Amino acid sequence: MMNDVRMYIPTYADMLAAQERIKPHIRRTPVLRSDHLSALTGADLFFKCENLQEPGAFKVRGASNAVFGLDAEQAKLGVATHSSGNHASCLSYAAMRRGIPCNVVMPRTAPQAKKDTVRRYGGKITECEPSTTSREETFARVQAETGGDFVHPYNDPRVIAGQATCSKEFIEQTDGLDMIVAPIGGGGMISGTCLTLSTLAPETKVIAAEPEQADDAYRSFKAGHIIADDAPKTIADGLLVPLKDLTWHFVQAHVSEIFTASEEEIIEAMKLTWKHLRVVMEPSSAVPLATILKNPAAVKGKRVGIIITGGNVDLDRLPWTKN
Amino acid sequence: MMNDVRMYIPTYADMLAAQERIKPHIRRTPVLRSDHLSALTGADLFFKCENLQEPGAFKVRGASNAVFGLDAEQAKLGVATHSSGNHASCLSYAAMRRGIPCNVVMPRTAPQAKKDTVRRYGGKITECEPSTTSREETFARVQAETGGDFVHPYNDPRVIAGQATCSKEFIEQTDGLDMIVAPIGGGGMISGTCLTLSTLAPETKVIAAEPEQADDAYRSFKAGHIIADDAPKTIADGLLVPLKDLTWHFVQAHVSEIFTASEEEIIEAMKLTWKHLRVVMEPSSAVPLATILKNPAAVKGKRVGIIITGGNVDLDRLPWTKN
Repeated sequence: MMNDVRMYIPTYADMLAAQERIKPHIRRTPVLRSDHLSALTGADLFFKCENLQEPGAFKVRGASNAVFGLDAEQAKLGVATHSSGNHASCLSYAAMRRGIPCNVVMPRTAPQAKKDTVRRYGGKITECEPSTTSREETFARVQAETGGDFVHPYNDPRVIAGQATCSKEFIEQTDGLDMIVAPIGGGGMISGTCLTLSTLAPETKVIAAEPEQADDAYRSFKAGHIIADDAPKTIADGLLVPLKDLTWHFVQAHVSEIFTASEEEIIEAMKLTWKHLRVVMEPSSAVPLATILKNPAAVKGKRVGIIITGGNVDLDRLPWTKN
Repeated sequence: MMNDVRMYIPTYADMLAAQERIKPHIRRTPVLRSDHLSALTGADLFFKCENLQEPGAFKVRGASNAVFGLDAEQAKLGVATHSSGNHASCLSYAAMRRGIPCNVVMPRTAPQAKKDTVRRYGGKITECEPSTTSREETFARVQAETGGDFVHPYNDPRVIAGQATCSKEFIEQTDGLDMIVAPIGGGGMISGTCLTLSTLAPETKVIAAEPEQADDAYRSFKAGHIIADDAPKTIADGLLVPLKDLTWHFVQAHVSEIFTASEEEIIEAMKLTWKHLRVVMEPSSAVPLATILKNPAAVKGKRVGIIITGGNVDLDRLPWTKN
């Protein structure tokens, strides 16, 4: 499914090209502050609000870079992916903006709201059984039938170069940071952050934040090689997927530290952010604040940037309510 | 309680002076967009997010203008008010920043969360019974004992001039709007909006939005004189108070239209905004969108500014959940 010629390590120049390419299609999201949250952590906190992208997640950056980078011939055939999360809706959104087809393979058990969003953006869903075998078979068939270009959710240099534009803006908007903390799942955002900072601001540390109950990146980082979780379970449903070769390259080379947090700590940090920063964000996006609250010595007195990665959440089923 | 010498109509020059005075103490809040909400209404929507002020409401503008405008002698004695809402916490916040006392008279039945916020900002609460008589008696006693300067939640020229700075920023941030829609309760924000626009952008209409179940401003506007509601009941708890002489002056002179919305329409608009704009806001702040969705002909194809007035809400008791 993966075209080998694409498996190169994206560079700072790729990020700059992505920035130009996607500018008309994404928002330069605001950086918000909360004196109260800063006081709670002892750090000077800056929140880069990627939840305020139109489709509600940073993944619109990588998706737009892939979609708008296609040549005219490939564009006619469109794009394809397998995902039940923000990548699926962001890829559909980008494809809709370019007016090209987007095929998404999604387990039939995925939440109805996720399916609705993909369809609202014109994505065509093919359902599979909720197993790796069924997903791979179904995706191979869809790709053969449509000729759509496979855009992997994170292990794709075009996607990583797109996500990398976020920390370029973040550094510009803040006049520099001592560290940036972002959640880690497959590692697309963290890889993009490493890509940009290692050239633009090598003195700014990159810290990854991960749920204890899906800590494959943490264990891989300690072991020095990729360890995949068996069947991680966490409320931070954007962070269930494992690292792959490209993202592992960036993590092992540039990440300073991986911090973890428990489910209760993630929910508490999510509620604190809703209350004091007053933005709607996903559980995954609360993991950085949760880990900072646990590790005050690491951030005390520092200028700390937190990337709020997404804001697509079921408002009828919030983790701190009973229903 | 009201010092007569203060009852003048604030001017554009007062707004400009307020802007300079409060600049270090408030945020220039961002203007956010949602293509989806624009498409739903047929208008080009711009949301001025005053819920993103540190204490979570536009009222920090008027409160800061009053507090930082006091001379040194009065400042020693501090300020005083009666309120159980955002004015109390914003006045406490401004007084804390200047390091002066703030006395707040609040019904003992007010929500614990509101009391906690006032105390977190150093405000001193004196409880009264939940009746007008008790509130007035208690407030008179507190003011006599402390000498605190009375800062009315809205019927005060310093407060109106402070709130007026919001639409100055809004016009600058958007390069002009066909209309601005804001909620109306006592009329402080609407009066400030009229004050600024009548000089800066007289072609921009001012539309007030009000809950059907607390429609005293609507009925006053139609009758041509102030009509107070008996005991309004609405989920938009920031909008329960009646117009007073100063705010009535601005409403009758400059407001183009008052639109109303039902409780269900307000809740639906609140949820839509949380979902698609991804900010946490109060029911009161949803009234403008609710009225626009009901009156598409009035906004079709127009550049419409909506002021999101506040974001202090009990996350454990959202109006669309059962608990």
